Amino acid sequence: MIIESQSDHENAWGWLKALPEKLWGKVVDVAEKIKKLGEDDPRRIIHSLKVGLALTLVSLFYYIQPLYDGFGANSMWAVLTVILVCEFSVGATLGKGLNRMLATLSAGALGIGVHSLATLSGDTGQPIILGFFVFLIAATVTFARFIPAMKARYDYGLLIFILTFSLISVSSYRENDQVLVMAHQRLTTIMVGSFIAIVTCICIRPVWIGENLNNLVANNMEKLGKSLEGFGREYFSIPEEGPSMDDKSFLQGYKSVLTSKETEQAMANLARWEVWNFRFGFRHPWKQYLKIGTLSRQCAYKVDALNSYLNTKIQFQTPSEFQSKIQEPCTKICSESGQALKELALGLKKVMNQPTSVYLHIERSKMAAENLKSLLNTTSLCENDNLQVIIPTGAVALILVDIVPYIEKISEALHELASLAHFKRVEARVSP
Amino acid sequence: MIIESQSDHENAWGWLKALPEKLWGKVVDVAEKIKKLGEDDPRRIIHSLKVGLALTLVSLFYYIQPLYDGFGANSMWAVLTVILVCEFSVGATLGKGLNRMLATLSAGALGIGVHSLATLSGDTGQPIILGFFVFLIAATVTFARFIPAMKARYDYGLLIFILTFSLISVSSYRENDQVLVMAHQRLTTIMVGSFIAIVTCICIRPVWIGENLNNLVANNMEKLGKSLEGFGREYFSIPEEGPSMDDKSFLQGYKSVLTSKETEQAMANLARWEVWNFRFGFRHPWKQYLKIGTLSRQCAYKVDALNSYLNTKIQFQTPSEFQSKIQEPCTKICSESGQALKELALGLKKVMNQPTSVYLHIERSKMAAENLKSLLNTTSLCENDNLQVIIPTGAVALILVDIVPYIEKISEALHELASLAHFKRVEARVSP
Repeated sequence: MIIESQSDHENAWGWLKALPEKLWGKVVDVAEKIKKLGEDDPRRIIHSLKVGLALTLVSLFYYIQPLYDGFGANSMWAVLTVILVCEFSVGATLGKGLNRMLATLSAGALGIGVHSLATLSGDTGQPIILGFFVFLIAATVTFARFIPAMKARYDYGLLIFILTFSLISVSSYRENDQVLVMAHQRLTTIMVGSFIAIVTCICIRPVWIGENLNNLVANNMEKLGKSLEGFGREYFSIPEEGPSMDDKSFLQGYKSVLTSKETEQAMANLARWEVWNFRFGFRHPWKQYLKIGTLSRQCAYKVDALNSYLNTKIQFQTPSEFQSKIQEPCTKICSESGQALKELALGLKKVMNQPTSVYLHIERSKMAAENLKSLLNTTSLCENDNLQVIIPTGAVALILVDIVPYIEKISEALHELASLAHFKRVEARVSP
Repeated sequence: MIIESQSDHENAWGWLKALPEKLWGKVVDVAEKIKKLGEDDPRRIIHSLKVGLALTLVSLFYYIQPLYDGFGANSMWAVLTVILVCEFSVGATLGKGLNRMLATLSAGALGIGVHSLATLSGDTGQPIILGFFVFLIAATVTFARFIPAMKARYDYGLLIFILTFSLISVSSYRENDQVLVMAHQRLTTIMVGSFIAIVTCICIRPVWIGENLNNLVANNMEKLGKSLEGFGREYFSIPEEGPSMDDKSFLQGYKSVLTSKETEQAMANLARWEVWNFRFGFRHPWKQYLKIGTLSRQCAYKVDALNSYLNTKIQFQTPSEFQSKIQEPCTKICSESGQALKELALGLKKVMNQPTSVYLHIERSKMAAENLKSLLNTTSLCENDNLQVIIPTGAVALILVDIVPYIEKISEALHELASLAHFKRVEARVSP
């Protein structure tokens, strides 16, 4: 027991001695993570500085006497508004700013109306009428926040509506004569605050969420294309052209596409606030991006199914007759479809029409798919073929045949997007 | 031309006449949607009434003289807090309330510190020092909101930190002597507001987000189980036991599992605030749910791959030799794995250990999978087998063999959850 407690003691001492080092390690670790966060997306640092700047600007209302004379302690609402409205992207900032202004305006008007009604009913009646309306409006508007269409775009506005209405109607009980002044000052300060937030957000290195959505959808297609190409080379053991890639991470690229649905949805909701954008123009068809996203995701499920066959890969070093027959159209589908996806992604990133070479790639994959189908339909089996080879290879072939129509649908959806949004036309060189 | 414009005129008249009917149709349509929203989840109606009630309670601070004497116009902060903190679930309400209180406390203290520092530097220096600190703190804390670990749990707190700090330090410039009183009153009113919101949320029909997560994960497993069972019956054309189900929607049930990742993640983040729940006890292992969710999703991708073979289903009315050989183990895997998933889901819903019958089902599916594997390895082909039948059926068999380990992993993860969370032990009758 003595020995044990001695060793316990030593352990504790050792632990204590190692503590500063451990703590320092933690600090360095956290600092590195923070540094990486900034390096990954320097727009985050710029956004932080923008918030600081907007806040410093709005606090001038306190420091400069003539400005302070105008609003007095109500300048508080301007400060509050800047902090709450300043968001990372233009879409989010515009959405919050407009929501906040509209909600304050309408709730203020309603609050004044209810206040007038309540004053009519004397000293005892007033709090009862006020209380009744606050309950009614709060409950109704809270329920309205559950309506999906409202939640998507006006959730913040509905919250501010309840807030402003309650504050104005409840405090009107104590400041009977001041209600109009109060409501007016509140509205003005909130408009000033929103204005400062929106101007800072748009004028200094703006982050357009619509462009982020455009790039996200394009990157997802690119990842799919790379995974598909990579699968073809891996499964059929084709030596790489160009420098060999030991890093097989491109094979896993499609995985982030599987779960991107909610991110895309949220971004599209915010992008709709960016009614005008110098790259996309006025009223861009954001819904079309969701359609393309859904098709990409369905395609990603197929690629996932393909990838599960990589684990049970059959060596193609000495291919059976069946394998050597289907190998050519299979690799053709992988490379042509992958190429088509990558070119579609590039076109979308540059906000231009699909180059005609995409149609060629799709035509070629369709031909390869037809070829593969007829091979599967006409090939008869020999006795020496065995099931362990035929089934997985054949299943891969079936999935590849299945993928081609999705690539075509994605291309059609992109074409629709390009015509809806008047993308610029590009005559790409056709390389037959 | 005259005829045309006449018909135009008639059209316009007809459109005008139909307008009230159309509008009425729209109104009825919206009303029905709203009614359905309430019927789908009556907790939404209760939540709306709760918000109304909490707000009426907090506005008593204005109506009742002794209460108003205590806080005066600062009661506004209590009203504001109730509206902002009242959320649908206990987890969200607790998270926001605690965030708000802690952030107000710490930012208030820092604000007072900076104010004291600024007063030392005279009339000209004061706004410069205040402005500098507001910029610094706002920029730093805004950047901290990008750190994923902070964003997940303390995003709201960080926002309130900037807000309180700015309000107190900036307005201290105008109300030099009042800073301590102001900070103190702000803190007290916010605590009262948060307290009212939290009590209303917990005491009246509370919605525990942790229970929702528990049920979501359980329901997802159940949907997977049903889809898997349904697939087995559909693909191998097995007549239904019991009443026939014309509605094939159960086949599509797995689809919502594919995209549930972000919902689960968000729910787990909120559930961690519910440190105590009368059903789950103290510090429930919410992370484990995410692990189960991920496994379910991987299983759902497999089911999606299976379902794509339903479209190209081969009639099993006159099965080939190969088909009749593998049909039995395939349907066995579908029914036993599906049954296992359904029982696991039921156990999780009831918050108890897995019934031993689950292990039996899993054992049986594993045996069937082994059986199927050896069938695929040993069967030799006859000349009259054709590829169009062998490949898709064989591919289905391969995916089914692949699914079994996932079911086992899900069961293990659930077992781990049960032991971590001390689920109650249930001795289920074993039906061999």
